[in-house]
Amino acid sequence: MRVFGTHTETLLYLLCLGSVQAGKLLVIPADGSHWTGMKPLVEELGRRGNQVVVVIPEASLSMGPSEHTTTLTYPVPYTKAELQVGVSSSLVDLFSRDMSSDLDKFKSFFHTLEVLNMFMVKNVQSLLYNKDLMAKLKDMDFDAILTDPFEPLGAIMSEFLKVPAIYKQINHPCNIELLSSQCPSPPSYVPRPFTQFSDRMSFWQRSVNMVRALLQPAACRRIYTKADVIASQFFQREISMVEIMGRAAVWFMSSDFAVEFPQPLMPNLVMIGGMLHMKTNPLSQDLEEFVNGSGDHGFVVFTLGSMVSELPEAKAREFFEAFRQIPQRVLWRYTGVVPKDAPKNVKLMKWLPQNDLLAHPKAKAFITHGGTHGLYEGLCNGVPMVMIPLFGDQGDNVQRMVVRGVAESLNIFDITSEKLLGALRKVINDKSYKEKMMKLSAIHKDRPVEPLDLAVFWTEFVMRHKGAQHLRPAAHDLNWVQYHSLDVIGFLFLVLVTFICVMLKTCQFCFRRCCRSSNKKKKE
Amino acid sequence: MRVFGTHTETLLYLLCLGSVQAGKLLVIPADGSHWTGMKPLVEELGRRGNQVVVVIPEASLSMGPSEHTTTLTYPVPYTKAELQVGVSSSLVDLFSRDMSSDLDKFKSFFHTLEVLNMFMVKNVQSLLYNKDLMAKLKDMDFDAILTDPFEPLGAIMSEFLKVPAIYKQINHPCNIELLSSQCPSPPSYVPRPFTQFSDRMSFWQRSVNMVRALLQPAACRRIYTKADVIASQFFQREISMVEIMGRAAVWFMSSDFAVEFPQPLMPNLVMIGGMLHMKTNPLSQDLEEFVNGSGDHGFVVFTLGSMVSELPEAKAREFFEAFRQIPQRVLWRYTGVVPKDAPKNVKLMKWLPQNDLLAHPKAKAFITHGGTHGLYEGLCNGVPMVMIPLFGDQGDNVQRMVVRGVAESLNIFDITSEKLLGALRKVINDKSYKEKMMKLSAIHKDRPVEPLDLAVFWTEFVMRHKGAQHLRPAAHDLNWVQYHSLDVIGFLFLVLVTFICVMLKTCQFCFRRCCRSSNKKKKE
Repeated sequence: MRVFGTHTETLLYLLCLGSVQAGKLLVIPADGSHWTGMKPLVEELGRRGNQVVVVIPEASLSMGPSEHTTTLTYPVPYTKAELQVGVSSSLVDLFSRDMSSDLDKFKSFFHTLEVLNMFMVKNVQSLLYNKDLMAKLKDMDFDAILTDPFEPLGAIMSEFLKVPAIYKQINHPCNIELLSSQCPSPPSYVPRPFTQFSDRMSFWQRSVNMVRALLQPAACRRIYTKADVIASQFFQREISMVEIMGRAAVWFMSSDFAVEFPQPLMPNLVMIGGMLHMKTNPLSQDLEEFVNGSGDHGFVVFTLGSMVSELPEAKAREFFEAFRQIPQRVLWRYTGVVPKDAPKNVKLMKWLPQNDLLAHPKAKAFITHGGTHGLYEGLCNGVPMVMIPLFGDQGDNVQRMVVRGVAESLNIFDITSEKLLGALRKVINDKSYKEKMMKLSAIHKDRPVEPLDLAVFWTEFVMRHKGAQHLRPAAHDLNWVQYHSLDVIGFLFLVLVTFICVMLKTCQFCFRRCCRSSNKKKKE
Repeated sequence: MRVFGTHTETLLYLLCLGSVQAGKLLVIPADGSHWTGMKPLVEELGRRGNQVVVVIPEASLSMGPSEHTTTLTYPVPYTKAELQVGVSSSLVDLFSRDMSSDLDKFKSFFHTLEVLNMFMVKNVQSLLYNKDLMAKLKDMDFDAILTDPFEPLGAIMSEFLKVPAIYKQINHPCNIELLSSQCPSPPSYVPRPFTQFSDRMSFWQRSVNMVRALLQPAACRRIYTKADVIASQFFQREISMVEIMGRAAVWFMSSDFAVEFPQPLMPNLVMIGGMLHMKTNPLSQDLEEFVNGSGDHGFVVFTLGSMVSELPEAKAREFFEAFRQIPQRVLWRYTGVVPKDAPKNVKLMKWLPQNDLLAHPKAKAFITHGGTHGLYEGLCNGVPMVMIPLFGDQGDNVQRMVVRGVAESLNIFDITSEKLLGALRKVINDKSYKEKMMKLSAIHKDRPVEPLDLAVFWTEFVMRHKGAQHLRPAAHDLNWVQYHSLDVIGFLFLVLVTFICVMLKTCQFCFRRCCRSSNKKKKE
């Protein structure tokens, strides 16, 4: 078999040209699961000899030092505890309010975004006016910046330092990557975020999708309103995040066409979905014993993501009741109240090695909220899912897996032990879920380059060539009217109308001449 | 450095699943340079253990047995000599007529297409009604078919055998790959074939481009008219080539964004431009001595492609005169009349090792017609070009290199020794051409996977998974009105108008009530 390693030859060639060297990369990540998704890439870039400097606020939920990198922190006017309280309070709404309607969910998500935005705006102000650190970063003369479009600070820093920017995004709420890269995205078959539509829409769904598509640019402006104001003040000229992100060299999209519906992509949109699928480790002895305890029935893995480890007592009871009635054992990441008569087949843990568990041959089902990382771990390991979307992009993620016949979806607001039991039995006992999941998993994993390698390659490419100008479409130089050829259509329409008028007039003239001469003849 | 070879792991995984095995591939290539472009891929697929069956007509210009494959031939009602005469006669027009206008060139190209089409239609009829061979091919139970959209036979065979099709195209005259894959291609910045526009167009150019874009579907139907009739007769139902090609699993595009202007691509459009850049061999002793003969001045390589090895005597004289005045030596693939006083620095050859010569450090310039293969060889080796487009896609190819400042363009119809000399001196002595070419070459060669490996990967992917259904957009299930959301726009417009009318009526009603009551009060 031919080894897919001729990139090495290219690198050797570039080395001869003197253009390969370790690059200098500035990383400004976003907090929470966004950092989890970026960390392996950052560490791999450092491990390969690049000088990687990660700049993070002193208070953060999950960000901290990473291997093979230098971490610099800057003071912020809030503490980690305040951040935790802010985020938790915005998530409490998830279960306390009645949010069965899509509008309520949407409102709640925007409330969460507002809360996060407040902290991110504080980050922006804290770093931009931290003269010492800014001067230090300027002196470092970076080749590129790797950042997250969720965190406006990275975009502003790329503009300030005048270095090419690489954005790594996870299902951005207003599809900023499509908007900024000028990617055509026909609303007739590309569903917009939060619609939970598939790519095959009814007339009504297409109408809703069209309205959402029309509102998207406004939504993007809304999300970045405060950041736009700060950036304009800082640069002392009118500037917007959408404009700055339009200058991106490359976008990494945390998706893959095994999950995402097929759609056109611009050349600088690179799909790296499933990047986190790391090598699995064997389970600890006690876990191994536990999962083998129910023999061929196997076991179920249950987590609701890094942000949600508790449930209201009544809701939790529904889960315990359902688990009591299945022959499988259950591993549940849960720190909430435990009923006295909790079933014996359930093991509660503060943290569980999710990927290692899902890779175990006896894993029969995965109960998940449908976060991107969990989804790809389930997909990589071919485990059918029962999905309970909580907020954000999770509803769309879940829809994509349900459409492919590899998952069942439940609503957290009206979940009962019967419903959960029904869904669990379906995905475990109906063989079609496992078969379809194995096929989808094989397609997802059958790729010419591993996602992490692809992300490393493009980051280093941007550092080597000081950008990726050859991937930048001329569409960026056109205004809205020109891009959509409205001026040309108007002109061609005018030409056509003029042509038809002239033709009609000519015919009329000829006809009259003919009539006149025939009348003359008659008279003669 | 991390080795980009984890594809091996995936393959091993698939091997465990039992889904990796040598595939069975049917190849139906097109003749001439199209076969030259497909042969390395076909041979590599065979070398990797796939069962590759190449089906070609008994008479052909350049097709024949290839390594590691089985070649089957079928009788056709023409001889190789007739084919050669047909093609040559269509190319004679190139120099004999006055074809300085774009329209003349376009007409001449369509004439050439018609001639080629006549032979291709004969191929279709010869194979489709060759019962023995058709039965044999049916029995072989292929996993996929690799073919060229230029040769309608391959598309019809994919429909007949019901196997997924992979098309490898080189700048198709009606952009069939974009049309068939439903790829958005905004005419405001994506120039159409034969326009020789760049991606930055004036208003007038955008208007012309828009008209060309509107005519493209009709052009595609025109090209395949005869094939459509034969296919409809064969399948006994109305069917068209565009419809069959719309079911393609994957399209290989012989281009790269180092040459092509950036534009959106569908997920099943795979760019493999530069696939032919094979390892170079050292020159033979006499060639090495010849190219070193002019010391640091270096040498010039001159070919006009596989189809044109002669020139009218007067034209040829202009070239000899120009070459006489340069300090470089010249290697020219030429079989025409040689003047008695031909300059000593010119070596004429029937065939020359183009890639090996271009890879030589003393190669200073490349005089070429701008065919795709030659263009990528020049690009890979970083040699500035003087380009003389003759027909077909060459004008567009040349434009792309000229825009990037790595080539000068000349018109064959009014070429003189002065003009040639000026262009040659410019690309050799003005260092910017070489510098820009080296940068472009580095960008072109800096890629995560070599084009040949990428083509091999996707061909085997289609064989492994019986297609690439996950890359097929839902756009294929929409009609023209639905795709462009015209029904939705109409509906939303109606809703808006109704809303405005109701609002106006309500205001009117309220206003009247108010007026009436105030009038009443006044009267009272």
